[in-house]
Amino acid sequence: MEVRLKILFTSLCHTDVYFWEAKGQTPVFPRIFGHEAAGIVESVGEGVTELKPGDHVLPVFTGECKECRHCKSEESNMCDLLRINTNRGVMLNDGKLRFSINGKPIYHFVGTSTFSEYTVVHVGCVAKIDPEAPLDKVCVLSCGISTGLGATLNVAKPPKGSTVAIFGLGAVGLAAAEGARMAGASRIIGVDLNSNRFEEAKKFGVTEFVNPKDYNKPVQEVLAEMTDGGVDRSVECTGSINAMISAFECVHDGWGVAVLVGVPNKDDAFKTHPINVLNEKTLKGTFFGNYKPRTDLPSVVEKYMNKELELEKFITHEVPFSEINKAFEYMLKGEGLRCIIHMGA
Amino acid sequence: MEVRLKILFTSLCHTDVYFWEAKGQTPVFPRIFGHEAAGIVESVGEGVTELKPGDHVLPVFTGECKECRHCKSEESNMCDLLRINTNRGVMLNDGKLRFSINGKPIYHFVGTSTFSEYTVVHVGCVAKIDPEAPLDKVCVLSCGISTGLGATLNVAKPPKGSTVAIFGLGAVGLAAAEGARMAGASRIIGVDLNSNRFEEAKKFGVTEFVNPKDYNKPVQEVLAEMTDGGVDRSVECTGSINAMISAFECVHDGWGVAVLVGVPNKDDAFKTHPINVLNEKTLKGTFFGNYKPRTDLPSVVEKYMNKELELEKFITHEVPFSEINKAFEYMLKGEGLRCIIHMGA
Repeated sequence: MEVRLKILFTSLCHTDVYFWEAKGQTPVFPRIFGHEAAGIVESVGEGVTELKPGDHVLPVFTGECKECRHCKSEESNMCDLLRINTNRGVMLNDGKLRFSINGKPIYHFVGTSTFSEYTVVHVGCVAKIDPEAPLDKVCVLSCGISTGLGATLNVAKPPKGSTVAIFGLGAVGLAAAEGARMAGASRIIGVDLNSNRFEEAKKFGVTEFVNPKDYNKPVQEVLAEMTDGGVDRSVECTGSINAMISAFECVHDGWGVAVLVGVPNKDDAFKTHPINVLNEKTLKGTFFGNYKPRTDLPSVVEKYMNKELELEKFITHEVPFSEINKAFEYMLKGEGLRCIIHMGA
Repeated sequence: MEVRLKILFTSLCHTDVYFWEAKGQTPVFPRIFGHEAAGIVESVGEGVTELKPGDHVLPVFTGECKECRHCKSEESNMCDLLRINTNRGVMLNDGKLRFSINGKPIYHFVGTSTFSEYTVVHVGCVAKIDPEAPLDKVCVLSCGISTGLGATLNVAKPPKGSTVAIFGLGAVGLAAAEGARMAGASRIIGVDLNSNRFEEAKKFGVTEFVNPKDYNKPVQEVLAEMTDGGVDRSVECTGSINAMISAFECVHDGWGVAVLVGVPNKDDAFKTHPINVLNEKTLKGTFFGNYKPRTDLPSVVEKYMNKELELEKFITHEVPFSEINKAFEYMLKGEGLRCIIHMGA
C-alpha cells in the first residue's frame, strides 16, 4: 500500500519550521521534513490499484483510508488510520524506514518527507490530480492553502453578501480570505497585529483592516461596532488563544459562525460566557479545511484550473533545492507567503 | 398590533418559578406570570390582519416581527423587536399596561401573562394553529417542549442510527430525547443526577442511563468509553456549567455536535481546551429550539396531529385555575413534568 513519488516541487509551511525548531520536543533524528509538495508516481507497491507510474499527485500529511468511520462519515476528514502523526517517523505498514544514508536510518516526517527527490508515501496520503495542472503552482494546495480555503468554503460557509472576519493574515488566513472572496462575501475584515500586511491582503479580497493594537477595547467590540452587532462568519488562523476567543465572540448572535483553524498551545484554555453560545453563535473547528485528501483535493485543483481560485499570488519566492535554507530564512523573517522549492527534474 | 386572547389552558414552566422566586432580582410588582398556554383570539387591535376572533393560537414569550434581520435570516429566530424581555412588564407599543385591579396597575410578564382568563399580546408573539388541535395538549408546545424538541430536530440534527446524549431529564430534556427518537437515533443516553428519572425517560426513547455520581471520572470519559470515542450528538438541558462542558467534550471528534439549551448563571465561564474544537467538534446554542414562533409552530402542532410527536406523556398533572398553587408545588418538589391549568371555559 505504498507509493514511491518523484517530488518535483515542494514548499515550506510553518509546520515544518515548528518541528524543525523542536522547542520542547524530543523528536526522532535525523529526519526529512517537507509535506507541501507535488510530484509524479515513480512506482507503486503491492496492493496499490488506484495509482500507476506517471500519475500526477499531491502527497498529503493526513490521509484517507476510505474504510474507517471518519472516512465513511460525510462530516469528518480525520481518518483513524492515517490522521496526522508528527512523532511516528516510520512507515505504518512495517514500522520501518524507507530512507537511509550510508546504512544509517533517516526518519520520515508526517508520512510525506517531501524535501527529497524521491519519497515513499502510504497510498491513502496521495491525491491523484489533473495531469494538466502545473505542479509548481498546485503544490501549495497540499497543506496551508487548502486548510484556509476549506475552513471558509467547507466550514464557515459564508452566504453571498455576508461579512467575514479573518484573524491572522499569513498564508492560511489569506487563503481563508480567498475563500470568502470566492463565496461572494461583501465585506472581508482582516485582523492582524502587523498593519503592513493589509496592503497585500487586499489582493485576497480583504476590504477592511483592524489592528487590535490600535484600540483600547477588545477587538470583538470593535468588530461588533463596525458591523451592527457582529460579523456573520469569522475564521481564526493564528493559534493565539485570545484571537480564538475574540473570533468566537465577534460573530453576530442568531446566525454567527466562528471557525478555528490555528493550532493552540498545549496549556491554553478557551473561555467564554455560555450566554454567547445560547445566543445562537456556533463554534466549529477544522482540520485541513475539512477536505478529505483523496476525495476532495482533485476538485480544489480544478477550482484553480478553471480560474475560480488564484494561486499565483500566494507564491512570493522560488528557490532551487540547493538553496532551501533561503526558504527557512524568508519564513523566519515573515517575508512573503510561500517559497516554492524546485527539486530539479 | 395587539391581540386579546381568551386563555383556555396554560401550564407551569420552570421559568415562571424562577422569576416568581425572584432571587437576586428586583422585579416590577405585581405582575401576572404564565407563558406556556393556548387560547382563542377574542378581539384584535388596529394593524392586525393575520388573525381574527375565533382563531386558535399559542402565545409565545418571544416573537417574530418578520421585518428585522433575524426574522429575515433563515438561521436565526432571535427577533430584534420581540426577543424575550423578562424585565419590561409593559406593552411594547405605548409602554403602558393592559391589566389593572381597582385602578392599580398590574404588570405583564414576557409579553404573555397567561395566568389570566384574558390577556393582551403583541401579534408577533401569537402563532395561529390548526383549529382541530386539542388546546389542552398543544399548549405545552408554546415553550419547554418546543425548546427541547427543536434543539434536537433543528440544531443537533442527529442522523438516523446515531447516538445522542441528553443531559438533564426534565421536561425540556425529555422533549430533546423525543426529538432524537423521532429523528431515528438508535442509542439515546440520558444523563441525570437523579436515577429515578430513568424509568420514565424510557417512554421518551431514552435507551441507556448514566448517573455521573456513579463514577469517579468525568462523565464525558464514561460516555466516550460507552460509545467508542464519543456520542454523535449531545443536547444539554440543565443549565449547569459543568454539564455544558461535559456535553461538549463527550461528542466524537470529526463529526460531533453539542447543543446547549440550559440557561447558565451570570458568572459562569465555559472553559475547554481548544484542541476539542480543532478536532472538528461543533458547539451550538439554541433559543426556543430555533423555532420562529409564527412561521414554525404550526408545523410542530401538525407533528402532534399526525402522531409523529407524542405530547400526552409530558402531561402528568391537571388542575383547575383555582388550584394553581398545586402546580407550583409539583414543580418545586420535582414531581411530574407538566401540569395543565384549566382556566375554565
